[in-house]
This record gives sequence, C-alpha cells and structure tokens, in this order.
Amino acid sequence: HHHHHQSVGIIGAPFSKGQPRGGVERGPDLIRSAGLLQRLEEQGCAVKDYGNLTFEEVVDDEPVGRVKRARAVGSANQRLSEAVRAVKKDGHTSVMLGGDHSLAIGSIHGHSAAVGELSVVWVDAHADINTPLTSTTGNIHGQPMSYLLHELHSKIPVLPNFSWVKPCVSAKDLVYIGLRDVDPGEHYILKLLGVKVFSMREVDQLGVSKVMEQTCDYLSAKVKKPIHLSYDIDAIDPSITPATGTPVVGGLTYREGVYITEHLCQTGLLSGVDLVEVNPLRGQTEAEAQSTVSTAVDLLLGCFGRLREGNHPPAYALPEP
Amino acid sequence: HHHHHQSVGIIGAPFSKGQPRGGVERGPDLIRSAGLLQRLEEQGCAVKDYGNLTFEEVVDDEPVGRVKRARAVGSANQRLSEAVRAVKKDGHTSVMLGGDHSLAIGSIHGHSAAVGELSVVWVDAHADINTPLTSTTGNIHGQPMSYLLHELHSKIPVLPNFSWVKPCVSAKDLVYIGLRDVDPGEHYILKLLGVKVFSMREVDQLGVSKVMEQTCDYLSAKVKKPIHLSYDIDAIDPSITPATGTPVVGGLTYREGVYITEHLCQTGLLSGVDLVEVNPLRGQTEAEAQSTVSTAVDLLLGCFGRLREGNHPPAYALPEP
Amino acid sequence: HHHHHQSVGIIGAPFSKGQPRGGVERGPDLIRSAGLLQRLEEQGCAVKDYGNLTFEEVVDDEPVGRVKRARAVGSANQRLSEAVRAVKKDGHTSVMLGGDHSLAIGSIHGHSAAVGELSVVWVDAHADINTPLTSTTGNIHGQPMSYLLHELHSKIPVLPNFSWVKPCVSAKDLVYIGLRDVDPGEHYILKLLGVKVFSMREVDQLGVSKVMEQTCDYLSAKVKKPIHLSYDIDAIDPSITPATGTPVVGGLTYREGVYITEHLCQTGLLSGVDLVEVNPLRGQTEAEAQSTVSTAVDLLLGCFGRLREGNHPPAYALPEP
Ligand SMILES: [Mn+2]
Ligand SMILES: [Mn+2]
Ligand SMILES: [Mn+2]
Ligand SMILES: [Mn+2]
Ligand SMILES: [Mn+2]
Ligand SMILES: [Mn+2]
Repeated sequence: HHHHHQSVGIIGAPFSKGQPRGGVERGPDLIRSAGLLQRLEEQGCAVKDYGNLTFEEVVDDEPVGRVKRARAVGSANQRLSEAVRAVKKDGHTSVMLGGDHSLAIGSIHGHSAAVGELSVVWVDAHADINTPLTSTTGNIHGQPMSYLLHELHSKIPVLPNFSWVKPCVSAKDLVYIGLRDVDPGEHYILKLLGVKVFSMREVDQLGVSKVMEQTCDYLSAKVKKPIHLSYDIDAIDPSITPATGTPVVGGLTYREGVYITEHLCQTGLLSGVDLVEVNPLRGQTEAEAQSTVSTAVDLLLGCFGRLREGNHPPAYALPEP
Repeated sequence: HHHHHQSVGIIGAPFSKGQPRGGVERGPDLIRSAGLLQRLEEQGCAVKDYGNLTFEEVVDDEPVGRVKRARAVGSANQRLSEAVRAVKKDGHTSVMLGGDHSLAIGSIHGHSAAVGELSVVWVDAHADINTPLTSTTGNIHGQPMSYLLHELHSKIPVLPNFSWVKPCVSAKDLVYIGLRDVDPGEHYILKLLGVKVFSMREVDQLGVSKVMEQTCDYLSAKVKKPIHLSYDIDAIDPSITPATGTPVVGGLTYREGVYITEHLCQTGLLSGVDLVEVNPLRGQTEAEAQSTVSTAVDLLLGCFGRLREGNHPPAYALPEP
Repeated sequence: HHHHHQSVGIIGAPFSKGQPRGGVERGPDLIRSAGLLQRLEEQGCAVKDYGNLTFEEVVDDEPVGRVKRARAVGSANQRLSEAVRAVKKDGHTSVMLGGDHSLAIGSIHGHSAAVGELSVVWVDAHADINTPLTSTTGNIHGQPMSYLLHELHSKIPVLPNFSWVKPCVSAKDLVYIGLRDVDPGEHYILKLLGVKVFSMREVDQLGVSKVMEQTCDYLSAKVKKPIHLSYDIDAIDPSITPATGTPVVGGLTYREGVYITEHLCQTGLLSGVDLVEVNPLRGQTEAEAQSTVSTAVDLLLGCFGRLREGNHPPAYALPEP
C-alpha cells in the first residue's frame, strides 16, 4: 500500500535478428521516451540506466539448417548475458528492454549465472520453445526456452556462437501464461516435460486472479527461487498492443496484463524482467504504436510497486487548513 | 490434448430472406475462402464439402399477417432439412454455414429427423423465439425456435410452405447463451416455458466457464442427447464481429465465444452446428468483414478439436540432432 | 423479471466549471436526445423531467489558493441541492444528469437533506476526494467527496459560496468502484478513513459479481440506508466511453458497467443517481461521442429495471392463432 523502494537496473537491447521484421530494435528507446525512468523514480524506486548494448556486426551469417542468423543471435546474447549478470551483481532487479524475444536466452542465462536457480514466468501468446529442429520458420525468437531448459539439452544441435549457452532452467520451474498459438512440436514438448501452462483457455476458465495464485503456489511449492519474468508484449490482446511482430487474437486484456505484474511484484521475489517485442513499425497508426509502448511502461510500473488503488509515500502528511 | 479425428460434413446455405438485409447469403463462400476446410483437415478432421444449396425463386411471396417471405423461407428450409438429414445419415457432424438464422428451422429439423431427440445450445444476442403473432418485424430469422418447440405448437398459425415443419425440440432441451436483446413477448415465452437462459447478465455473474459447466450439467441431467449448436455470430461483441445484421453492444468476447466451442467439443456430443448471420456488407470496412469471418472460422475450429494450448498429432516424434 | 413501476425525476445540470474543458455542459441534452425518457417510460417507469437548471454568472471568480472557480461551483451546487431535495420531496428517485462531477456536492447534499443518512456508491476511475489543500490541479470535480465526508470536515478550508455545504456522509457509508488513477493524498485519505475501495485490481480479482455482492453486504451490514449512486462515465473503459474529460485506460467493460446498475436496481434501495462527465467535445469522432452517450443511457436504464434477459409487462398475454 505504500511506495516501494526497489532498486532497478535497466539494460536496453536494441536487437532484432531473432526474427525478420525491422523496428523491434527501437523498443528500448521508445519505452524510455515514454517516461519509464522518471515514473519509476516517482513511485519510489532507485533506478540506474545501464544504457543500450551495442552488438557487433556479424558477416556471413548464413542459415544453419533452418536456423536464421544464429551467429548474430548467439553473439548478442552472450553480451547480454554478461550485462545482466553485472546488473544483478550490482544488486538491482534487472530490466531488459528488447528487442526480440531471442534475447531471453542471454537475459535468463545471465540472471541465473548471478543468482543461481530461477523460477521463470513466461507471459506470451507463444511458447517460444521450438528447438532448432522443430522450428518451421528458423527464427530464434520462437526458440529461446529450448536452449535454456536442462531437459531439452540433448535435442539441441550445435550452433555457431552458442557454445557459451548452458541450460540453466528446469522444466518444473517454468510457468507459461497467455499461450494461444502453439506449434505441434512445441505442444508435444510441453506435454512431454509436463510444463505448467495457463493458456488463454485456463485464463478464461480460472480468471487471472486464480491463475496468478496457482502460478505462485506452483513455483514456491518447495523453495522460493528468485523469479525471472519474461514478458512478450504480444501476450496482450492486439486491440491494445498491436505494434508487435506476431500478434494473435484473443489475448490478455490490459487489466489482466497489469494484474500479472502487480501480483508478481507483491511476491517480493521478482529479480529480473524482460519486456520484449514492442515494434513501432508494426503499428498501423501512431496511436497504435503509442498504445503498445505505454502499455509496456504500465506493465513495468506494475512490476515495481504501482497499484491501481493508488500509492503514497510513507511520510505523507495531510495538509490542514 | 491430441488431434481429433472427427468427420465433418459442410453445407452452404446462401439464403437471406429471413431478414431484410442483402449480403448474408455470401457467408458460406467467405467462410470457406478464409480456409475453413484446409484448417479443419490440418487439425485432423475428415471433411466433406456438400457445396452450396440452391433455393428456388418464389414469386408472389406476399406477407402473411406480419410474416415476411414465408413461402421462400419455408421452401428453403425444407430443402436444407433434407440436406442436413443426408449429411447425418452419411455419418458426419453437420456444419451449416448461413445465411440468416431462419435456417435453423431446417437445420435442426433435419438433424432431429436423422438422429432423434436433440439438445439445442443457442448462442445469440437474440432469443429468436417470437411466434409469427408476437413478432413486430415479421422477419422469420427472429422466430425459428417458435416453430421447433413442441410447447409452442398451438401458438403457431398456418403459414404457406411450412406444413412440413413438425416441432422436434422440447423446451427442457434448450439452453440460450449470450442473450441481451429480448422482446417482451419472447421474454414472456421464455419464462412461461421455463427455458434455461444464460443472458449476458449470467455470463457476467458466473463467468463463461461455469456457464458451460451448468449448460452441460443441465442438458445431460437425464440422458445425453446429441447436441445441436446454433451459433449466431451476433452473440459475439460487435467490436469483434461487426459485420452482421443486428449487432448489439455488450456481447461475448472473442475468448468467451471460443471457450464455448472448446467446451462443447470436449463433451463428445456435438452432432450438428450452425454458423449464421455473417454479413460482409454490414462491415464498415474490409477489416471489419475480415474480423467477422475469421472469428466465425475460429469458432468452427474450436468445435472440432482446436485448443488454444496447442495440438499435436498422436504420432508426433521429436527430432534429435 | 417484470416491468418496474418506479417514479423517476430528472434534473439536467449543464455545468462545467468544476474542470477546465468545455463541452461537458452538453451532457444533459445529449442524454435526453438519445431517448432516455421514452425508453424509461417504455420499461414501465413514471418519468418527470424537471428540465435543466440555470446557473448564475459569477464574475471575479479568482482562484482561492489552488482552488479554481470556487464561487461558481459553490453557487451552482447550492441551486442543485435545492432542486434534488425538491425532487425527493416529490417522491421520485432523483436522476442528476451532469455536467462535471463537482455536481455531486449538491446532488448528494440535497438528497441527504431530503431523506437523511445515505449509502454512497461512487463509480469512477478517480476517487474525487482531494481536499482543496491536497489537490494539485485545483479543479473541484476532483474534490467533491472531501466536502461531503464528516471525517474530513476539519481538513477543509473556508471557500466562498461553500458555507451552505454541511458534511452529510460517513466514511463507512461510502464504497468506491473502478478506481485506477488515485493521487497520493487521496490514497492516504482512503487508508486513513478506512474507506471501502474496489479498485480495478479488486474488480479483476473478485469479478464484478462478487464486487457488487460485497458492496451491498458492506453497506447494509447494520441498517439499509437509501443508496446514492454517483456514476462518472470515465469509470467505463475509454474504448467504449472516450468522450470524457479525464479518460484512464484499464476501465470497466460495458458489461461490468451495466451489471453494477442492474444489481443496485434490484436492491430496491436506489434513491438518487448522478450520471456525469459525458463530454461530446472530447470524442475524436461523432461515433465516439455517440457511444459514450448511449452507454450513459444504458447505465440509467439499468438503474431502473432493464434486464438483459428481457422484460415484459405484468399483463402480457401471448397471442393465439
Ligand atoms: Mn509472442
Ligand atoms: Mn515471445
Ligand atoms: Mn442474433
Ligand atoms: Mn439469431
Ligand atoms: Mn473520473
Ligand atoms: Mn469523477
């Protein structure tokens, strides 16, 4: 009910080569321009902006099997992993502003390298768990979880610039929320590994409140691990956040999207956040891009203490006439 | 969780004379063009397309009392009834693509002629249960249930080309979902007959999940009859499916609309489906027509096994490096 | 389930000086033009239209501290208070069509002057409970509840034309629904006084049905007082009611908005209603203004017996062939 005093470390990752559409590399600057830092500070957070990462140009990045731009994605994520690790070592909750969702490889890897075993809450229309061999598109933003899960290690072929990636998440520590466009191979994997999934069907069935309760009960059944929240803006319905590369009808409402962040914030376990796939060039109008960006900001504010009932600083004094 | 292997028989019914607005006769071809057949096959269904019915021109179809185009509607539905009966005799789940909702007369009549007593789930903004004498507009698409219910038989006057219609549904075997624009006479009838109604108020109160649970509990309290689902696209909110003749604010969300189909599919009792009142000429823009048509397709996919959590064929094998 | 025979007294209050944007004074005439009176009569209400109030021009209405147009607001509300008192003395449920939300001062004051202690249900994106000293904008439409609550009396400075205002509501008799944009000072006050608040977070968590159940349980825990419903159209999501001065994303759906009115109607305790902040000039298009106005009408119809399942007059007789 009062202002939180969390410390937030922000990394911009203007990277788009996990998928084919230009524009998503503008996400970090747009989210900052919409006032993220000031608004986090206003609600009582200490904020450090680590700026935007720069990524080396990779030449001759030919497909490896079906996998596109493996070298660029591998190299960018290695850099991101180091950056997130440093932010965590500095004691902040890390916030990675994407960029496309292939960046979750580096963000989760670096987070785990710093703090150990994680719970991962993946909010997305998609499962992003294709292996390089099940993927039909070859876009790595549809594959990041496959590289990160211990259980899929034997299914992952060797890829250039990926040798640094070590699986660091257990299937039992992963929860999906918002799925509604899952490939057959992905569905097979989710069932095979027994991954906890709240697809839109379960959100409809249980309501977002029970979904979040069950998510947290499930993740903290044994020990309470630090939570990594990987939030793909396409989890939210395209009527609200249309400016994204792979929109899918039937998504989370704005309210459900924010509720998820409010709930995770109140666990006190939120240790790293990704906000990815904001692509202003995919909006049909300026208003569509703006609505997408401002929703992204609201999701991040919800992660760091903002409540819709309001907030006030602990020292607030009511003025008398 | 796996692909269903249902057999689907599709009948197009390009008929619009149950109401005054041209365009709704284009529904069947538009729904097919949006990929219905291929997508049903991709999800493991055997599909047979019986093509579009042709309807004889009726001349001198003057109003009978207030009832408009009774002869054309009676004759078209007689033909449709035979066609649905044949599809059922061939062993398929019947799918009737409208056209306007007057076609439910023939579709339900033919379905019942083939399989006997039915449960009817009517998803609609409207009850479509005016008798020819309570109707203020005279449009038969607002009356089909009155011809089909045993309990209303004595309230129905003689109409030309309707002598073949025999009531075949009991009021206790009928459930409405989505009502929000009900005429006084209709409301009187619903109360008189004790029909089970989940208006939008009950959807708000219970949530769509409990509505579907209660719907199925209610319908299978004694014996499990084959289910006829009559889905008027105007049940869905006009923000999603505006291209329809009589849109009403405050409708089902896309997600609720799909949930209904997923739930009915999983009963294993779905035996006949109508998808009616898609009218591309009522969309203000091409996008509005497209959104309406693609929602209609998604509702039908949901009827035949598609799940938002994903699906995979039973023989799926995960590729190894 | 049948027509209600309530008696409704309507007062138009074309007043906009509680906030800076012109246009909101057109609310009463627009809501009438959309057919409010005829439709209330059609659903069985006796309706008396008391017409629009006229407000005296106030010259030299300089800010008092930060508070803007105090003299005009004080004077208009004094007139409104008398008018509402008269409507109540005539035996009607009062309906005040705003105008901006500063008018709740006069409406609630006059209502209470006529009938005694009230329960107040305040449906709004905002708490409107700033004192003249906590307000950062000085707009009185963000302050009305502060003048009305006994508990805040000592925090209110003297303002010109406000001497007639006596606090008449206890904090324990107030329930907020729909809050999502609450100032720090307001949040402090709500916590200090222990006001019952269902912010959008609680609406998400409980669902609107439990929110209304808990609202009515809370308010009638001891004695059942007459209910004053103060409905700010900005409680509803701006995708539905954009034509308002201070829209906030993440609002009530149309269905939730109507559900609130249906539920309060069925308590039998609804004694006064405000419908405020409809501002046609804030719509980007004619359609946006129309959607806002027609939603306002639907909310008022819900207050007076309209049900989405339908209604029929008690004497309805089913026509026989
Ligand atoms: Mn996605
Ligand atoms: Mn993703
Ligand atoms: Mn309808
Ligand atoms: Mn219909
Ligand atoms: Mn407001
Ligand atoms: Mn207000």
